Amino acid sequence: MKNSFGNAFTVTLFGESHGSAIGAVLDGLAPGLMVNEQSIADKLALRRPAGDTATPRVEKDPFQIVSGVFEGKTTGTPLCIIIPNENTKSGDYNRCAPRPGHADYAAFVKYHGFEDYRGGGHFSGRITAALVAAGAIITDVLSQKGVTLATHVYRCNEHCDGHFNNPIQQIAALQHMAFPLLHPELEEPIKQVIRDARAKGDSVGGVIETAVCGMPAGVGEPWFDTVEGVLSHALFSVPAIKGVEFGDGFALCDMLGSQANDAFAVENGKIITTTNHNGGINGGITNGMPLVFRCAVKPTPSISKSQQSIDYASGQEIELSTKGRHDPAIFHRACHVVNAVTALTLYDLLCTRYGTDWFTKEG
Amino acid sequence: MKNSFGNAFTVTLFGESHGSAIGAVLDGLAPGLMVNEQSIADKLALRRPAGDTATPRVEKDPFQIVSGVFEGKTTGTPLCIIIPNENTKSGDYNRCAPRPGHADYAAFVKYHGFEDYRGGGHFSGRITAALVAAGAIITDVLSQKGVTLATHVYRCNEHCDGHFNNPIQQIAALQHMAFPLLHPELEEPIKQVIRDARAKGDSVGGVIETAVCGMPAGVGEPWFDTVEGVLSHALFSVPAIKGVEFGDGFALCDMLGSQANDAFAVENGKIITTTNHNGGINGGITNGMPLVFRCAVKPTPSISKSQQSIDYASGQEIELSTKGRHDPAIFHRACHVVNAVTALTLYDLLCTRYGTDWFTKEG
Amino acid sequence: MKNSFGNAFTVTLFGESHGSAIGAVLDGLAPGLMVNEQSIADKLALRRPAGDTATPRVEKDPFQIVSGVFEGKTTGTPLCIIIPNENTKSGDYNRCAPRPGHADYAAFVKYHGFEDYRGGGHFSGRITAALVAAGAIITDVLSQKGVTLATHVYRCNEHCDGHFNNPIQQIAALQHMAFPLLHPELEEPIKQVIRDARAKGDSVGGVIETAVCGMPAGVGEPWFDTVEGVLSHALFSVPAIKGVEFGDGFALCDMLGSQANDAFAVENGKIITTTNHNGGINGGITNGMPLVFRCAVKPTPSISKSQQSIDYASGQEIELSTKGRHDPAIFHRACHVVNAVTALTLYDLLCTRYGTDWFTKEG
Amino acid sequence: MKNSFGNAFTVTLFGESHGSAIGAVLDGLAPGLMVNEQSIADKLALRRPAGDTATPRVEKDPFQIVSGVFEGKTTGTPLCIIIPNENTKSGDYNRCAPRPGHADYAAFVKYHGFEDYRGGGHFSGRITAALVAAGAIITDVLSQKGVTLATHVYRCNEHCDGHFNNPIQQIAALQHMAFPLLHPELEEPIKQVIRDARAKGDSVGGVIETAVCGMPAGVGEPWFDTVEGVLSHALFSVPAIKGVEFGDGFALCDMLGSQANDAFAVENGKIITTTNHNGGINGGITNGMPLVFRCAVKPTPSISKSQQSIDYASGQEIELSTKGRHDPAIFHRACHVVNAVTALTLYDLLCTRYGTDWFTKEG
Repeated sequence: MKNSFGNAFTVTLFGESHGSAIGAVLDGLAPGLMVNEQSIADKLALRRPAGDTATPRVEKDPFQIVSGVFEGKTTGTPLCIIIPNENTKSGDYNRCAPRPGHADYAAFVKYHGFEDYRGGGHFSGRITAALVAAGAIITDVLSQKGVTLATHVYRCNEHCDGHFNNPIQQIAALQHMAFPLLHPELEEPIKQVIRDARAKGDSVGGVIETAVCGMPAGVGEPWFDTVEGVLSHALFSVPAIKGVEFGDGFALCDMLGSQANDAFAVENGKIITTTNHNGGINGGITNGMPLVFRCAVKPTPSISKSQQSIDYASGQEIELSTKGRHDPAIFHRACHVVNAVTALTLYDLLCTRYGTDWFTKEG
Repeated sequence: MKNSFGNAFTVTLFGESHGSAIGAVLDGLAPGLMVNEQSIADKLALRRPAGDTATPRVEKDPFQIVSGVFEGKTTGTPLCIIIPNENTKSGDYNRCAPRPGHADYAAFVKYHGFEDYRGGGHFSGRITAALVAAGAIITDVLSQKGVTLATHVYRCNEHCDGHFNNPIQQIAALQHMAFPLLHPELEEPIKQVIRDARAKGDSVGGVIETAVCGMPAGVGEPWFDTVEGVLSHALFSVPAIKGVEFGDGFALCDMLGSQANDAFAVENGKIITTTNHNGGINGGITNGMPLVFRCAVKPTPSISKSQQSIDYASGQEIELSTKGRHDPAIFHRACHVVNAVTALTLYDLLCTRYGTDWFTKEG
Repeated sequence: MKNSFGNAFTVTLFGESHGSAIGAVLDGLAPGLMVNEQSIADKLALRRPAGDTATPRVEKDPFQIVSGVFEGKTTGTPLCIIIPNENTKSGDYNRCAPRPGHADYAAFVKYHGFEDYRGGGHFSGRITAALVAAGAIITDVLSQKGVTLATHVYRCNEHCDGHFNNPIQQIAALQHMAFPLLHPELEEPIKQVIRDARAKGDSVGGVIETAVCGMPAGVGEPWFDTVEGVLSHALFSVPAIKGVEFGDGFALCDMLGSQANDAFAVENGKIITTTNHNGGINGGITNGMPLVFRCAVKPTPSISKSQQSIDYASGQEIELSTKGRHDPAIFHRACHVVNAVTALTLYDLLCTRYGTDWFTKEG
Repeated sequence: MKNSFGNAFTVTLFGESHGSAIGAVLDGLAPGLMVNEQSIADKLALRRPAGDTATPRVEKDPFQIVSGVFEGKTTGTPLCIIIPNENTKSGDYNRCAPRPGHADYAAFVKYHGFEDYRGGGHFSGRITAALVAAGAIITDVLSQKGVTLATHVYRCNEHCDGHFNNPIQQIAALQHMAFPLLHPELEEPIKQVIRDARAKGDSVGGVIETAVCGMPAGVGEPWFDTVEGVLSHALFSVPAIKGVEFGDGFALCDMLGSQANDAFAVENGKIITTTNHNGGINGGITNGMPLVFRCAVKPTPSISKSQQSIDYASGQEIELSTKGRHDPAIFHRACHVVNAVTALTLYDLLCTRYGTDWFTKEG
């Protein structure tokens, strides 16, 4: 289905980095949901590059909701949101040679050279602004049903922020942080790692971790549309993500079954598990515990350091130094995109389980 | 879409562990593909539990192709394959309390108690036999187009089999190994780890690694239907998989961009990359290099050690000791299921890219 | 999506006329629905050819539910139902020349000659037995929510059965009639038309009409997934249907807007329309009135009269006389298939609208 | 899937009659297709209301292609086209009572009163401008592969334009006619019928007929995704269409099998049928003959004549006279929408059959 995602609820993305606009169509929204334009603006601001650890490209993101909202609420028909592109200096880009680590070459083959190559075109991280705008609407809707979520920088080099241990409170605290950390004192040292990389014309990556509270048990499907499968499907769309693990993930391989299994208990009359090694998911279905997962965000492929590439015209190997404005790290910005993607995906799973109208019902 | 997967080509799974049969429907197959029943039998034999590191449940897997094959070739209409269940001792199972680490509780909530709980029912690893049978057909088809793949046990505890370094040859060697290893001398020590766990009434997990050779560049989609996204979506259906990483995956987070980027070069007139840190995928699209990914397989949740659970009837916490026949490890058997799932997924991506008839065309 | 239909709920068909079995997989069923095997047997009996107006091929239809039912109720996981083929005299068929009016030639091109051509293979009306079995399960479920439906022979030649005028009662009466008519006294004259055609080695067609009572208002989508669109999509799968019209259909073109519009009124506190020219659908969405539509069923293409065809081997025009067992009319049998298809389609639309669990909720 | 249609290629519609804009996203387009903005403008002009037989609402349709086109050609990534709304006098509309024959009441129930009711909102015929713009792009693409199509007014009251008898030439002639007729001398008498209806505050309907030449044999699926099924699914989205018939459609019911079957013959070495009663489709699959189908377009529901409705506030029956600008007939304008919908649907079927790249290959 190419640039759409979801079943009962779908998001469709369009736009290129240096075209006139980017945007998204959301279809399958319940009618009567509040749409708070300030929430959208706030989330876009969090995603926006800022400071000396980001690209100097200024993105103002003045979005427009073209359809699907009437008198401040969703109509139930497709919501189209558009974000015009500004400040697009196409001159910075050309197509003489593909940038290593980028989609350039793969896209060239796939689209037979017809792709808009300027600034990564449709592959650009710029497109994630549309995801974030869409996610902002859905995040508000989810929170009204008690489903909250946030992502923090779990690790960059030797700086580790640790795991969620009190997710409800930690999610609340993280939601408004542009550089989200459980331990904000790590912001400066991690930014220093980024600055050091930039100084060398290089870039760095990091691991980010997400928690979701309030997901009811019984959501997801046994085969194929497991919660892990559907979430990871969406998450790998976020540029630079190369790994996803749920609960203790790869570390589960070093445990015995008796350590990895989460024992059941009763708490306030509700069945819970005493640990959460499985990240809130058993057999692909939510079990009522917080969802927890981590994504590996590779170092930004755009670096100014010289790298070997191929000149398309001559077929010769050449040295390429990527010019233009780019981020020396995107893992902190990816946190906001992961939040959006997670919210959009869970909304679809919940619609599939309970029907669209569930979101406008009491209780 | 619940129990179906794929777009141009879809697989639908049905059946329960202790029902009369399990099976799969394959729809969207090109007409005229050879169907080799021996290949199916061989792959089912590799997946089958065997020896003292597996469940004593004997599975003979006498499958039947009900439709879609005529005179030894696919007709292009749905292929239904059925594997009757035998040797199902339902008496071993009851539903007094959910097994920790299993789908039992999540399924109970999802299906309101109507699920066939015997032996895990539709969540049982038994269902993967249908996946393996389906995958066997497709693996043969892919190999005729030069696409080959295999999975090995990458690591169990301290025993590490290392990464693929010569994938074409290594894939050929692995394809017929029930306990697939690049270094077969590790089989005995790893089996000893499994035996030790079983002796304690416990279980162990492991990391498995897959390589795919021969995938053309330009396959996959930029948003949502990335190759990573579509593959991981399917892979997380394999019971016990809790993490998926592509290329160097989480280890990319410890590299600089200049280390993680794969430089382009020309080899025999073809554009290649000199390294493969990105696992053959850039921007969600194949770049012509081998696909490489690893899955975390958690320790089998079925253990005979006593664990805490909840008695559904009384609502009280109880001690539960899982009886019945079960595997103390499934990561080696999961290799064969991962191969099947990978083949089925790539076949769909290739059909989407080149059209169904591509598989019966010369060249 | 080839041989599957539906979104929240899907039906997948498999099998060929002269293969070992045909069947269907139903996925997305609510858990806990009663499955009455006698209902399935009864509906299969109604569809089965009988008497001197039908093919002498005897179909006993001993079906088997392979999965998805446990202790008499749906589990919520895929329900696979299989009907073995018996009495398949393949010798009656060969592939020297395509039968006019049949799928033979179109299938030959589509499947490059690999299709199972015996008796129409996957295109055979035989496959509708699987649809009818599936529809029987769903018809029972719908009726428990007050949604009932039936189809009658509206017209054959000059014999016109008239429109529904009291659909609730008429549906109840029609449900058990193998040759369904509002005026059963027309059965003999219509059968005489069929016998006359058979005597000439020819066949006849007819118009059939369906009514559905109890559909709530507000079901369907404005664009593309209109109720008319989704129903007609499914209905044109029924072999020999070449036209579908809703409400007054083509006759609306001879009315003025003031005649075609259905005025609103209040009846027992409920908004109704005083007429039903629009067949219970406005703007693609149900309005709470009975759904009414008619299908054109062309004369059976299999006739013994000599017709012109092409010999595949020589490329020459030849005279072809279709041998084998065939029906001189299928419109009366198509009524039962249309009922099944309608039930399956409406179940999906209702699941999409209200969620799967709606069917097991009170009220 | 709500407001999207298609599999390999999808169209998604958004917008409301009195919102800021309407538009469409086309996804799955081959890269490298020429996009001729003049073609789009021309098709929009044909659809546009004009003269005294149409609504006085002036639509200029200044569209903008937001994404997916680079240097005049498709990129292969989503093409978003937006048409701003102008001249929207919302004051003409209110929501005191639903208009008979319109979607108002059904939408009110479906969307719980949150729909944008002004001018029909998302149900408005206005949205078809986006379909026509999308269809214009695809019509050009199809014609480059030899697939051409057109629709004419087949009948309005006693004025019958007759069937296609030389479709290739007739399609060429019809393509540029705003009021498309095989016999243009019927335009004035049919317009007089429309004027007469308008004079009475009423409206009229008509039957329209479409032919498609150049479709290769072997396209479509046996079950569910039959060509008839997929086309009718899309066609019933066109507002006011209440019936669809293929080939001789309902008239087939008055033929014998020997009359309805199309005999095969060889012409210039190619297999053809000597008649085309089945409209180019056998068993749901194209047979290489022209596709022919007719749609019933009901009289426009918006009339100024007084009709009975219900006052939502009081629950009382009231007399309603629809004010505002509206068409006394839309069947001639529907021809252009049907062309667009047909082109979009066939493009998807061809992509599914031959792969996306087929459209940019020679031959």
